[in-house]
Amino acid sequence: MKPAAALENPVAFSLLGQRSQPPTIARLMTMALEAPNLLSLAAGFTDNATLPVDFVAAAAEELLSNPVDREVLQYGTNQGRPRLRQLLAERLAQNETETGLSGTVLQRGLFITNGSQQALYLAMQVLGDPGDIILVDRPSYFVFLEMLSGLGLRAVSMPVDAQGKIDSPAFGALLDTLANKGETQRIKAVYFVSYFSNPSARSLDVFEKTAIAAELSARGLCIPVIEDAAYRELYYRDIPSAPSVLSVPQWEKFPKLYTATLTKPFATGLKVGYGFCTDEAWLRKMLHVKGHHDFGTTHFNQAILEHALVTGNYDRQLARIRLAYERKMSALHETLVREGLPALGWSWAKPTGGLYLWLTGPTTLDTGLDSAFCRACLEAGVLYVPGDLCFGDDAPRNRIRFSFGVLSDRDLVEAGRRFVGVARRFTP
Amino acid sequence: MKPAAALENPVAFSLLGQRSQPPTIARLMTMALEAPNLLSLAAGFTDNATLPVDFVAAAAEELLSNPVDREVLQYGTNQGRPRLRQLLAERLAQNETETGLSGTVLQRGLFITNGSQQALYLAMQVLGDPGDIILVDRPSYFVFLEMLSGLGLRAVSMPVDAQGKIDSPAFGALLDTLANKGETQRIKAVYFVSYFSNPSARSLDVFEKTAIAAELSARGLCIPVIEDAAYRELYYRDIPSAPSVLSVPQWEKFPKLYTATLTKPFATGLKVGYGFCTDEAWLRKMLHVKGHHDFGTTHFNQAILEHALVTGNYDRQLARIRLAYERKMSALHETLVREGLPALGWSWAKPTGGLYLWLTGPTTLDTGLDSAFCRACLEAGVLYVPGDLCFGDDAPRNRIRFSFGVLSDRDLVEAGRRFVGVARRFTP
Repeated sequence: MKPAAALENPVAFSLLGQRSQPPTIARLMTMALEAPNLLSLAAGFTDNATLPVDFVAAAAEELLSNPVDREVLQYGTNQGRPRLRQLLAERLAQNETETGLSGTVLQRGLFITNGSQQALYLAMQVLGDPGDIILVDRPSYFVFLEMLSGLGLRAVSMPVDAQGKIDSPAFGALLDTLANKGETQRIKAVYFVSYFSNPSARSLDVFEKTAIAAELSARGLCIPVIEDAAYRELYYRDIPSAPSVLSVPQWEKFPKLYTATLTKPFATGLKVGYGFCTDEAWLRKMLHVKGHHDFGTTHFNQAILEHALVTGNYDRQLARIRLAYERKMSALHETLVREGLPALGWSWAKPTGGLYLWLTGPTTLDTGLDSAFCRACLEAGVLYVPGDLCFGDDAPRNRIRFSFGVLSDRDLVEAGRRFVGVARRFTP
Repeated sequence: MKPAAALENPVAFSLLGQRSQPPTIARLMTMALEAPNLLSLAAGFTDNATLPVDFVAAAAEELLSNPVDREVLQYGTNQGRPRLRQLLAERLAQNETETGLSGTVLQRGLFITNGSQQALYLAMQVLGDPGDIILVDRPSYFVFLEMLSGLGLRAVSMPVDAQGKIDSPAFGALLDTLANKGETQRIKAVYFVSYFSNPSARSLDVFEKTAIAAELSARGLCIPVIEDAAYRELYYRDIPSAPSVLSVPQWEKFPKLYTATLTKPFATGLKVGYGFCTDEAWLRKMLHVKGHHDFGTTHFNQAILEHALVTGNYDRQLARIRLAYERKMSALHETLVREGLPALGWSWAKPTGGLYLWLTGPTTLDTGLDSAFCRACLEAGVLYVPGDLCFGDDAPRNRIRFSFGVLSDRDLVEAGRRFVGVARRFTP
């Protein structure tokens, strides 16, 4: 009558639960807490000084002073507030004129989520079974990679050339290798961060986007594609020229999910993102699971964002932060140059948008979380995200992601100095 | 080279995705939309008239006028705002004096979620593999049951007597039957809504809570228990006397998860719930998965609830709505009595808290979504939740859940009249 195993090990976790590793972000935060004077270039937080307290206050006041809008404190629907979905669809349609995708079509496939993170989670939860393969960009968003691992899915990187561009022949060869291993049927989706990527800060150009579709099509692999456009609106000066997969003809027949967020560009504390899905069955599955997760994202915050979009405050805020992030990027970038990091064997591209600087160190350097270099940086009071976390497989050890969103200009300069000081000591 | 299956059926869904059924709530909403003058007693929405626009406005104004609190628009942590967790732990400790659980211990195990729904989802996601068994109350929360089905888990009801109380010998016999079938190891958790239950409106007394633990313990089944206390604060006059499993000695050695919400009693549009977990490994697993779902519930809304708790506005709101819900319950209850429903073979207990009326019709009546009775109600302009959706197994067909949260008093009277009119026509 007494199953001993149940008594000795009272909580038996599911297979999916077992696979879930402690999030790296938790280890980084613990490190930060243990070092009092640490300047963190690791946290992906946004700039505090430019947070739109005025715009959120204006929205809250108007929404709550109008008795008709009392319903903003009531439950909303699982898919999201219709007017907000309409506004987001219209914005998206402006960027996607070539396909003739109308706002109406877009609105039907558009759903609101708890940040774009939840849209990515829902997509993976309904597409993949343990052991399945997801093709990812190289490098890729590390929380996405950890989520795949948590769901028991395997990330396989799409090969890139020395400039970081998709290497089309190598990608084709990879697909053929997978086919020869009998794994074609296990490839369930392709994922990439397409604009000012986290972590690489680079954008895919239209030729790369076309090439991915072409290699897949050539092998009859009409798999779902997920374009993570979280940073598309965070350009500094020039609107990114590449269209999304929604407008690239070679992707026309593929089931597509485009994800984006109102969180990063406006107020991260509100946590409202969205997805637009071109495939009805896929959309329906994701909405079913969302119904079980939470049956709808906070209705009040959706109404605040709707107000910001309608009044133009959302775009005013974008104008503010584009300047702020370019200034902050420059503060860090110029410090690293001035302090002589390039001469120590480090290289990086100066970003034209986004929140990240992506550095390549000397070939033999190990920047991993448990490396001597990382410990030395911690002792010098500067923290970064080790680049090896950002690769689905075959991770190089000499990369680093800096986030310049949260520190002040002065702290960015100081953090840059500290980093170059350590880099100098580690130069042979 | 061309896998035909991939071309013909481009989106291959995961096993979990395949199992996910269209949410019943979606079907009910479609029905509501198709019938213009419908009065819905189905939707679990809360009372619009008493929503705390004043308290939320006060919180937003104070939080956003203070530059120090600009961080409320910034990302928070995955587990939730420390001060809010502390406040919730202190409230919980006040109810759980017998165990000597301090606020500090409670705060460590307390985590903030997107409504209590997400806490339930995380619990199930990390505990159960497809085919596993979850023991549930009878009747049970139908969104929870649908979620189990979506995750491929099997719900098995704990038997109850004619009064709806846990039938302890029958429950023991059920556990023995499962053991004889070799299924003991597949039982992964026990779940119940303990106060003013959705849908039954009844509360488990301390003897029932003790009996469940005793029957499990007698068989060495130290499985995780999940107490869903979403309606605990929604009593009309008297604080429910039964302690939670956190304070019942017979549950001491079991891994426990207590879930509750700030959504239902305050403003559903803010969607902030919480869980308190006594088991460190279980808690850690849930937080890992939460890190992948969304890495933290909206920080701004947590700050609004924190403000409401600190200022006492949260309790002022509770005082308001307890009166309102008792009044609304009475409006519906008294209409059903006055119109003569009991004489037609219907029975129900008058609730002392919560948002629901749970009716038992004549034995031979079928109230299911596709029944003639349900169609007749729709034609008469009144909608309910068919009771058979609220059973994990062996569902009776003659039950009905009414929710009186959202309709006005006048509409409740009219909806009650319409319903009794149909019930009369269906009386043999």
